[in-house]
Amino acid sequence: MVKVGATYLGDSRCQFVVWAPLLDQVAVKISSSPNQSHILQQDSDGYWQVMVENVQPGDHYLYLLNNEKERPDPASYLQPNGVHSASQIIDHQSFPWTDHRWLGVALDDMIIYELHVGTFTSEGTFAAIIPRLARLKELGITAIELMPVAQFPGNRNWGYDGVYPYAVQNSYGGPDGLKALVNACHDQEIAVILDVVYNHVGPEGNYLDDFAPYFTSKFRPEWGNAFNFDDSYCDGVRNYFLENALYWYESYHIDALRLDAIQGIYDLGIKHFLEDLVDVTYEFSQQQGRKIYLTAESDLNDVRTIRTRDAGGIGIDAQWCDDFHHSLHALVTGEQQAYYQDFGKPADLEKAFKEGFVYSGQYAPHRKRRHGSSSTEEPANKFIVFSQNHDQIGNRILGDRLTQILSFEALKLVAGTVLLSPYVPLLFMGEEYGDTAPFLYFISHSEPELIKLIQRSKAEEFRAKGFAEESYDPQDPETFHRSQLNWEMQQSGQHQILWQFYQRLIHLRRTNSTLNKLSKKGLSISSCESEQLLMIHRSSEDGQVFYIFNFSDCQVEFEASLPTNDWHKILDSSDERWSGLGAILPDTLAPFQPLKIQASSFALYQA
Amino acid sequence: MVKVGATYLGDSRCQFVVWAPLLDQVAVKISSSPNQSHILQQDSDGYWQVMVENVQPGDHYLYLLNNEKERPDPASYLQPNGVHSASQIIDHQSFPWTDHRWLGVALDDMIIYELHVGTFTSEGTFAAIIPRLARLKELGITAIELMPVAQFPGNRNWGYDGVYPYAVQNSYGGPDGLKALVNACHDQEIAVILDVVYNHVGPEGNYLDDFAPYFTSKFRPEWGNAFNFDDSYCDGVRNYFLENALYWYESYHIDALRLDAIQGIYDLGIKHFLEDLVDVTYEFSQQQGRKIYLTAESDLNDVRTIRTRDAGGIGIDAQWCDDFHHSLHALVTGEQQAYYQDFGKPADLEKAFKEGFVYSGQYAPHRKRRHGSSSTEEPANKFIVFSQNHDQIGNRILGDRLTQILSFEALKLVAGTVLLSPYVPLLFMGEEYGDTAPFLYFISHSEPELIKLIQRSKAEEFRAKGFAEESYDPQDPETFHRSQLNWEMQQSGQHQILWQFYQRLIHLRRTNSTLNKLSKKGLSISSCESEQLLMIHRSSEDGQVFYIFNFSDCQVEFEASLPTNDWHKILDSSDERWSGLGAILPDTLAPFQPLKIQASSFALYQA
Repeated sequence: MVKVGATYLGDSRCQFVVWAPLLDQVAVKISSSPNQSHILQQDSDGYWQVMVENVQPGDHYLYLLNNEKERPDPASYLQPNGVHSASQIIDHQSFPWTDHRWLGVALDDMIIYELHVGTFTSEGTFAAIIPRLARLKELGITAIELMPVAQFPGNRNWGYDGVYPYAVQNSYGGPDGLKALVNACHDQEIAVILDVVYNHVGPEGNYLDDFAPYFTSKFRPEWGNAFNFDDSYCDGVRNYFLENALYWYESYHIDALRLDAIQGIYDLGIKHFLEDLVDVTYEFSQQQGRKIYLTAESDLNDVRTIRTRDAGGIGIDAQWCDDFHHSLHALVTGEQQAYYQDFGKPADLEKAFKEGFVYSGQYAPHRKRRHGSSSTEEPANKFIVFSQNHDQIGNRILGDRLTQILSFEALKLVAGTVLLSPYVPLLFMGEEYGDTAPFLYFISHSEPELIKLIQRSKAEEFRAKGFAEESYDPQDPETFHRSQLNWEMQQSGQHQILWQFYQRLIHLRRTNSTLNKLSKKGLSISSCESEQLLMIHRSSEDGQVFYIFNFSDCQVEFEASLPTNDWHKILDSSDERWSGLGAILPDTLAPFQPLKIQASSFALYQA
Repeated sequence: MVKVGATYLGDSRCQFVVWAPLLDQVAVKISSSPNQSHILQQDSDGYWQVMVENVQPGDHYLYLLNNEKERPDPASYLQPNGVHSASQIIDHQSFPWTDHRWLGVALDDMIIYELHVGTFTSEGTFAAIIPRLARLKELGITAIELMPVAQFPGNRNWGYDGVYPYAVQNSYGGPDGLKALVNACHDQEIAVILDVVYNHVGPEGNYLDDFAPYFTSKFRPEWGNAFNFDDSYCDGVRNYFLENALYWYESYHIDALRLDAIQGIYDLGIKHFLEDLVDVTYEFSQQQGRKIYLTAESDLNDVRTIRTRDAGGIGIDAQWCDDFHHSLHALVTGEQQAYYQDFGKPADLEKAFKEGFVYSGQYAPHRKRRHGSSSTEEPANKFIVFSQNHDQIGNRILGDRLTQILSFEALKLVAGTVLLSPYVPLLFMGEEYGDTAPFLYFISHSEPELIKLIQRSKAEEFRAKGFAEESYDPQDPETFHRSQLNWEMQQSGQHQILWQFYQRLIHLRRTNSTLNKLSKKGLSISSCESEQLLMIHRSSEDGQVFYIFNFSDCQVEFEASLPTNDWHKILDSSDERWSGLGAILPDTLAPFQPLKIQASSFALYQA
């Protein structure tokens, strides 16, 4: 492995390393000596390097390629003036870390909070997040997951248009801003998961092709060009991304990665890039004595993604379980558009609850093919579940959250479904108090043609789905501002109650001796299609719990089939305390007792 | 699985089944009642079917799609008038098979003879092969491998431009011709391996797109479009090819398939198409009580291809070992162009001899990336080896065989290297007597633009490599005729001696109690880079052999390092009997004895 980028060595010396196997000459021009250029030497693997003296952190630099083109560094650590300008030299040794005793958070203990730096606060910076950590901690959050922070064009973007995988977004606060946030998180025992995009780069500011064969034309992916992970010169591309992962662990103390859409990482070679990434991450973890986790978004429902390396799998620690989301969403909203047509029955959610993947090989009507493999053998901590996330909100035509779609009762119900599941729960920022801000698709490109193209394509989508073409303009700063959270909401009314309800659920999940075990063992479940009731019984060495979810919007009579025991209710979402319709389930349960449960509510008993 | 095509049921009834999930109407028009069309009924999986009465084998038919287009059947069993015309109804029950007692040939016993039906004889038919089988049998051949016989445009083609995977080439003799050949082979205890192309179809006569989404644009393969093995509607495409394999086993009694270029079968889904094919083939074998083998050509050097299904592999029985060929070819010819630049050292051939794959993960200069995985753990019968094949000859600029490149001594040497290897040997037709006919690239398309395109591209290749642009014209019938074998050659001179030498080698391989074991165990090998000597010692429970290959073109002095024993020479390629330079190695070997071996020769001892 070869470390790429501009490594500041101290004493005004900097080592420049860049991969460009097909170029005839590479030189570096540095702002502190603008009339000079330093020629790099190429090794047999196509890496060029040079050590330059009289260089200071903060200096800007550009590579001069074949004496023709000036380009920022593909492994730039900071693009102080955006994607089209010079890179900046960063001293990664200088940050005053105070997390030396940090041991990380085990996957089983993670309550993940996904946040977008730009819209989480009105400032839109890493620094502005820090004062909010206490409140997240109070809620019970143990890990924040940052949407991508790699440098993207302009200062408004979800982050998936990043073009410098090593550069921390300048408008968010750059490298020092991110380090300060991670350090503050660790101080408060919160882990930091970083969303990284190894499947494509955005449409503006990508100069990788000027350096090396980073891309392949073998595949035609959904977004942009496919990275060359398996063809001629792939070793340099693989190194670039493997080193990128190590860079986040080492220079930023990142605790876990969330790998974006791994189905877009095309690799037909012997050892999939992700297997290399798992191995490299494992080695680093071993050296550090602290486990770094790899989590992934995947559209494949392929159990090999999460199966261990020893068992022949790729060995990703946990993957987002879209099937859980879709089952829950289709059930509570009744929506059947697009992929929701493959879901909607209580039995789907039951299978998601018990196994993880709902599609385990059967025909999926929306996909028009058989889909998935069985995940029954995989432990519960391999799945990350959610009722909302940036995509499931943001990809809706008007970016509306469940807050806009569901009753208050149903909002509590979905919270319970996620947080009482045996899986690793993830909340999307603002969900915990039912923020009403949409999460819209916002960009801030600088190329007029590209902006028009995106605007037209969005207008076309609005039209096709029967909405006004001018519903919103992705490039308009107002679109971004509308997506920012309304923190003041959580101080009052039902928002405040919802927040307290989430806090209570998280507290129960973390302290109840059965709920805090991420295990599918001892979980039995029964559903009733017509009545949309789900009854779940979980037992562990340390106790038993029983919960009933009513996904129908009317009261339901039922009889609980559960082992004779001393059952005490510990939570009822229809309680007046939670602004509910009023609890009608008894505080204790007797066998064969006829029971009634309020519409869109749930209750939790323990024995 | 759904059986597709026109199945003649007897009693003038025929069942038509065709997959066309997106069409509104499918009808079939049959030549015997030209004014009538029969409308098919669609099921929920997109298959259309109808049973029609008053139909006879030999009747022609076309499908009428959406009342607009008339098209041949994608699963046509015969295209009597070529790729653009009607399909013909075939009665697969009527052939008088006499191979009821046929048990097949075990992979370990296979001596494979690859042949191209069109150029093997001057008639170019299946029927003309039958009288030649006795001579192949006499040589020691136990399996013939037919280059693809699926219907291609015109009557001159290697076969890789086939567009009807189920139709047996009309000009070769159609279904009955192939059945008669297979039956005759089985009568003489010769197995039949069929080359099938599941990675693309040819550029002329492909109407698959009119029926269904057979292709995907997700991948950009080297040849044609990629078949849709993993996207929407892939179930129908997978069924089409799985049924195709079963069709060859069941209707033609084919003993094994040779899967063309499996790296071109793109499938990123959960279960690779080839895994399905292995499972389906295994099930069929179990039902028949006769093992059907799957062999494959692969450019991947991926050990998972040949690893068993139980061990997490794809489970292909054996794959072509190009690394063995390239090591041998580069060593004996000294050629270093194109992929030969990755080979040439005696150590490469040594590794190929011991392990199979030479590239097991190290950097390959020609590929400009690391390549391959280790095959040390895989048994010897997983590799098929050869010194020549249709590609290694035909893809040379002038299609010249080793006969044109090597001395007579070296021809015997390469024969020995292949036939004394622990792997499954394959000869290319004519190799056994050093036929001098080239194997050129010949086509017989009917579309003028396509013909011009191919002619221009070939002329460009000639020019680029420094040959006359008019070196040969692929469309010219003379190009095809020049590629036909000269059977009369084997009756005289060195050709006859070479034939006898091959016969002797095959006889030794099949009868010697060590050579007839396909095992890497007990094989030790030493090479000497400067002297280009390879000394191989193999021992089994039943004996020991020792052979010395001299790949240099001069006499070499050496000392044999071999276990003390009673070593008797049983073959010496430099013997005058084999038209050699004269044997100088002693008939018996003593330890530490200084020895000399003739240029480009080898000798075999047993103990």
